[in-house]
Amino acid sequence: MIYKFSCITIGNEILSGFRVDTDFYHLVKELGKIGYSCVLHLTVPDLKEMIEKALDICLRETDVVFTIGGLGPTSDDLTRESISEFLGTELEFKKDIFEELKKKEPMLSEEKHKKYGLFPKGAKIYKNEVGLAHAFMVLKENKRIFSLPGPKNEFEHTLNKIINELEKFENYSVFYFDLPFKREIEIEERLKKKIKIENLFFLPYTGGVILGLKGKKSEVEEFKDLILREFGEEISSEGPEPIEKVIGDLMRNKKMTLSTAESCTGGLLSSRITDIPGSSDYFIGGVVAYSNEIKKKILGVKEEDLKNFGAVSEPVVKRMAEGIRELFKTDFGIGISGIAGPTGGTQQKPVGTVYLSLSFKEKTQIYREFFTGSRKDIKFKSSHFILNELRKMLLKL
Amino acid sequence: MIYKFSCITIGNEILSGFRVDTDFYHLVKELGKIGYSCVLHLTVPDLKEMIEKALDICLRETDVVFTIGGLGPTSDDLTRESISEFLGTELEFKKDIFEELKKKEPMLSEEKHKKYGLFPKGAKIYKNEVGLAHAFMVLKENKRIFSLPGPKNEFEHTLNKIINELEKFENYSVFYFDLPFKREIEIEERLKKKIKIENLFFLPYTGGVILGLKGKKSEVEEFKDLILREFGEEISSEGPEPIEKVIGDLMRNKKMTLSTAESCTGGLLSSRITDIPGSSDYFIGGVVAYSNEIKKKILGVKEEDLKNFGAVSEPVVKRMAEGIRELFKTDFGIGISGIAGPTGGTQQKPVGTVYLSLSFKEKTQIYREFFTGSRKDIKFKSSHFILNELRKMLLKL
Repeated sequence: MIYKFSCITIGNEILSGFRVDTDFYHLVKELGKIGYSCVLHLTVPDLKEMIEKALDICLRETDVVFTIGGLGPTSDDLTRESISEFLGTELEFKKDIFEELKKKEPMLSEEKHKKYGLFPKGAKIYKNEVGLAHAFMVLKENKRIFSLPGPKNEFEHTLNKIINELEKFENYSVFYFDLPFKREIEIEERLKKKIKIENLFFLPYTGGVILGLKGKKSEVEEFKDLILREFGEEISSEGPEPIEKVIGDLMRNKKMTLSTAESCTGGLLSSRITDIPGSSDYFIGGVVAYSNEIKKKILGVKEEDLKNFGAVSEPVVKRMAEGIRELFKTDFGIGISGIAGPTGGTQQKPVGTVYLSLSFKEKTQIYREFFTGSRKDIKFKSSHFILNELRKMLLKL
Repeated sequence: MIYKFSCITIGNEILSGFRVDTDFYHLVKELGKIGYSCVLHLTVPDLKEMIEKALDICLRETDVVFTIGGLGPTSDDLTRESISEFLGTELEFKKDIFEELKKKEPMLSEEKHKKYGLFPKGAKIYKNEVGLAHAFMVLKENKRIFSLPGPKNEFEHTLNKIINELEKFENYSVFYFDLPFKREIEIEERLKKKIKIENLFFLPYTGGVILGLKGKKSEVEEFKDLILREFGEEISSEGPEPIEKVIGDLMRNKKMTLSTAESCTGGLLSSRITDIPGSSDYFIGGVVAYSNEIKKKILGVKEEDLKNFGAVSEPVVKRMAEGIRELFKTDFGIGISGIAGPTGGTQQKPVGTVYLSLSFKEKTQIYREFFTGSRKDIKFKSSHFILNELRKMLLKL
């Protein structure tokens, strides 16, 4: 029902902990959509011996193995050689392919860049139109090894081609629900009498949990409706689509505009909003009012409120939202002020205390929240919280 | 000279591609500092069979193995059981440890949370003071398996304890240089006659390359000076410390202040600056002038400049930097306007075209740059570029 695969990422830069292996994440997500599940992932250095061992381990577990990286032209790129040795075959220089690449990149020299034309004997080639290292597939006793280049766009480009011709497992389905600020234990409690728990899986992130639903297509369809009924508006997206995108679509449909006044989040909220292409349709702009002077001067926060209640307080954050909405002439105004830490906390307002406000027409909603984690976590959760409140408000319009 | 280790991350949420395995990155970095290098990393699902296989594979490669995750109380947490089975031993309930935990968390029930008191026979325990799942170490024929809880702070807390008692390999050393907007090939060219290439490694990221230097302590010291001389101010930090932090220290030392006017970066620049604790000492605030109206109204950009040259142009970005500096009364003002894409490009100004400016005293420096990649890449590179220019300017003061 579900098809298993494994994956080997090759490269010192991943093992050194400096680069996040985004190719792998992309692979798992894309293959998940057609019914494939990753059961083993190895990361190995650029060493022939380790690459061959990894291939051996993976082929014992699954009939399909993907390798990522190590297809470049330099001496530390060893994937071609390793796969070839592993198969007990030779590398073949495909002159026609090399000549074709040379047309694209006349600087290629057969001496320095020969590797781009080398493939294990019998390999099926998936051309890489956005780079120089083609992907390829070889067979080992009917088991398939797909080898793809590492650079993100080249990886995604060649993976697309491979996915197009892979068998699809239509009877299997996966579905996701984004549940901001929910906890696994609550979700499980609410669903356990209605749904088979083995169909659920939980993917926690800094601002909540993504609830995954997997299984036979018919089951997933049935349970999906149950979950939608149970959680309703608490689900920020089905997809998973980022909440910024959900809000963007709502804002555009309802012809609304938005501006932001941020203190502790320092621009993270507006940056997230503007990560979405076309956000200029509804996002007019924002002010990062980090100092009290700016809060007063630009947003009209009152000196006495700052003095009596502090910068992290209800009247200040209320005025921030209202001030930015008036100044930028938008339908919605958001204000955030909090203590992101690690210092600056007090007994009454410990690190993690954040006031947030959402101004719309005559009404300004205020929230006092307490978020845990690092400075970056608190920034993220603050932005996530108010995006989620904005989403719920937009749904009611 | 260098000590090898391997690591197994256990958990569906990592294999599903939804959570980045930050524990692993932390592990590699911290152990690197004391002379340990990771040669194999496996990620396996919460399945006993796979966990045991992974242990077997790792112990063939290295004498030290770390496992991350799967120590919680629910039925899908199987690390304890798997390690115990793998060793052919039993799980022991340590009542004293459980009672101790109960004092901390009176809600614990021996039925539901029994696992917190279970350890493979003979395990050495590393207490987790920030959570409930203690870490432990077991021996398999003199080879060591360390098992740590997955939640970030609990992982880091227990890892610290383990590191304190691990042998240190003092003769080995690693050093890093952050080189914004440099390419591996250029770095290699410039260093290859001076330094043994096998001591270098490259960790590329979206806005440049981190150059790593590894080897015997004496070699690293010698080469370090060579690299510092060769690249000088092109090195944004030795560390690696984020450029935001470097700038923060420079600003504070020189008693300077900063404000930002962002269009295409949408607040990412100010968010990065405010990721640094204490940034309110020098960062006064910013404006995200996403719409042309705001550029005119708040920053004083001229209507005719927008009409004649467009929002992504020299006069506009110049005025943005000067406008924010005047309005916020800071020493430095930054302006950014560009086309982050994926749409909005023209023949003259394709997607990726970004104008940036840095205003200081009577002088405003303008940069026209072209960045490649996704919308998020272009945003990041734009912020990174201007932070780097600001850094260089601060060094000259």
